[in-house]
Amino acid sequence: MVELSTICQPVQEDLDKVEERLRLVTRVDFSPLSELLDFSLRSTGKRIRPILTLLSGKFYEYNPEHLLTMATAVEILHTATLVHDDAIDNSLVRRSRPTVYKLWGTEKAVLLGDYMFAEAGALTATTHNLRVIKLFANTLKTISSGELNQAHNAFNLEQTRSQYFQRVAKKTASLFCMATESGAALSQAPEESIQILIEYAHNLGIAFQIVDDVLDFISTEEELGKPVGSDLVQGTLTLPSILLMQRYPEDNPVKRIFQNKDEDKQKNVELAIELVCNSSIIQECFRVASDYCVKACQNLNLIPDTPSRQSLLQIADYIIQRKK
Amino acid sequence: MVELSTICQPVQEDLDKVEERLRLVTRVDFSPLSELLDFSLRSTGKRIRPILTLLSGKFYEYNPEHLLTMATAVEILHTATLVHDDAIDNSLVRRSRPTVYKLWGTEKAVLLGDYMFAEAGALTATTHNLRVIKLFANTLKTISSGELNQAHNAFNLEQTRSQYFQRVAKKTASLFCMATESGAALSQAPEESIQILIEYAHNLGIAFQIVDDVLDFISTEEELGKPVGSDLVQGTLTLPSILLMQRYPEDNPVKRIFQNKDEDKQKNVELAIELVCNSSIIQECFRVASDYCVKACQNLNLIPDTPSRQSLLQIADYIIQRKK
Repeated sequence: MVELSTICQPVQEDLDKVEERLRLVTRVDFSPLSELLDFSLRSTGKRIRPILTLLSGKFYEYNPEHLLTMATAVEILHTATLVHDDAIDNSLVRRSRPTVYKLWGTEKAVLLGDYMFAEAGALTATTHNLRVIKLFANTLKTISSGELNQAHNAFNLEQTRSQYFQRVAKKTASLFCMATESGAALSQAPEESIQILIEYAHNLGIAFQIVDDVLDFISTEEELGKPVGSDLVQGTLTLPSILLMQRYPEDNPVKRIFQNKDEDKQKNVELAIELVCNSSIIQECFRVASDYCVKACQNLNLIPDTPSRQSLLQIADYIIQRKK
Repeated sequence: MVELSTICQPVQEDLDKVEERLRLVTRVDFSPLSELLDFSLRSTGKRIRPILTLLSGKFYEYNPEHLLTMATAVEILHTATLVHDDAIDNSLVRRSRPTVYKLWGTEKAVLLGDYMFAEAGALTATTHNLRVIKLFANTLKTISSGELNQAHNAFNLEQTRSQYFQRVAKKTASLFCMATESGAALSQAPEESIQILIEYAHNLGIAFQIVDDVLDFISTEEELGKPVGSDLVQGTLTLPSILLMQRYPEDNPVKRIFQNKDEDKQKNVELAIELVCNSSIIQECFRVASDYCVKACQNLNLIPDTPSRQSLLQIADYIIQRKK
């Protein structure tokens, strides 16, 4: 399996600088805020989104300062959405650590997320690139509206595959698109190349989310760093459960969870996991995710042949093979 | 008493257009989001902040399009902070209506607020004015950090007047400052005039918050459109309670609320209100607020003598006399 550390090689130095910048962001004159920022931004994530920004910025003439700033902003925006997600889902564990919500409560998690959105926006503004600044604001609109869609459809069994893909495009792929578009736009890339990198990120982001949704069924809490089955607990219908609903339309544990909510919930979640894992559903999901990855890479040959391009191709493999 | 409708006269037409733009913002292709936006942005507030932006933009050469956009963004940013505040304070009523939190719950209130922050940022970006774009992001940082300070100090009796004023400057006055600075900066105002309008808004904003904090003691739920005494219930020490603590250092209802939290809370809140209302504390608070208003207006004579300047002076009176 291709390792993330191998993929990062063309931008490893920059990625280290992004880590430094994330640490700089935590140095504020109000120590309780500093502590919250430090806890949330400390290096525990995969940093896939800033890696995409850095890689996408390497094909043409780039301003290293602006590219690093943007990669930092992308990671902060991503982290802010996680902090809010955990608060509204009452999630206690993420990345094998307690969440901000668990340690400090809803109030501080919401305000910390707000602060981080603003910090990411402030960093983006320092690039002085209006396209990228507008992209930032519009991406946050898209993500929030995708999350609202998910909240609105919680415990709703009448959701189609197509609605699932639309939501995933909004809540996950939009930030992948922002990551590559901002990197490319900050490096004088021709519009055609920018569009190829956006298309790449759109398909990659959807594949990423499908795998995320599959891992919520097939992984272990230890490997995943958070409880499995949490989508069903939250009433979120994902690709595996949509396929399960199609295969057992009469009666199935997903239906029971969504219709009776609290009654025997944990038992039905376990049953749903068992049913999904012992069917060809997982295989089917991976096939769909792989198709998106193939689609992601199909036009990459139209941008310059560099080590960064090689890494973008490898990320598509990594996305499918990852265990967390 | 000077009426807000009189104050608005120089910008009434623009203000009507801001209302139109707020309605436009609610037209999105996901109807549950549209409903949430419509509910939150419907004309029920005083619109003081967009009025400040419009008035501040009228002294020099302004682009009407950008000024209207900015005033709209300022009101959306303000509303987003209220939506989040109500969610984290579990507030059920505001402006005599149920809150978004009450009607739709924490999850949707948080996500709606996020969406509105982004919408306000997106509108600000369309002004193409980098100063204003940076100001927007930094103001949201300042507000969130002021709110975090308040959350951190909930039920903490060891807070000084100076800490109170610092917090008020961050959580309230910073948005007033953004309102005037953005208006002035979008109208080619000379830097000296911009600074005068920022200083005006800083002092006005502090006076506004002091009056808000006083109304939480002396008003009625009917007049205020939300429950009185809510600051004490939330454990927020404001100027009236700081003065009460100073006058009755041994034992007082504020101390009892903060130390015993839930025991006899409502009774002690009523006692605190009674004690504050039957003392000279209210008078003292109004004196402090009036001093800030005088300070707010002291350099306004250095900007052009127009109907807008007259309105800015009148707002200072209005702030003190308002009942809600």
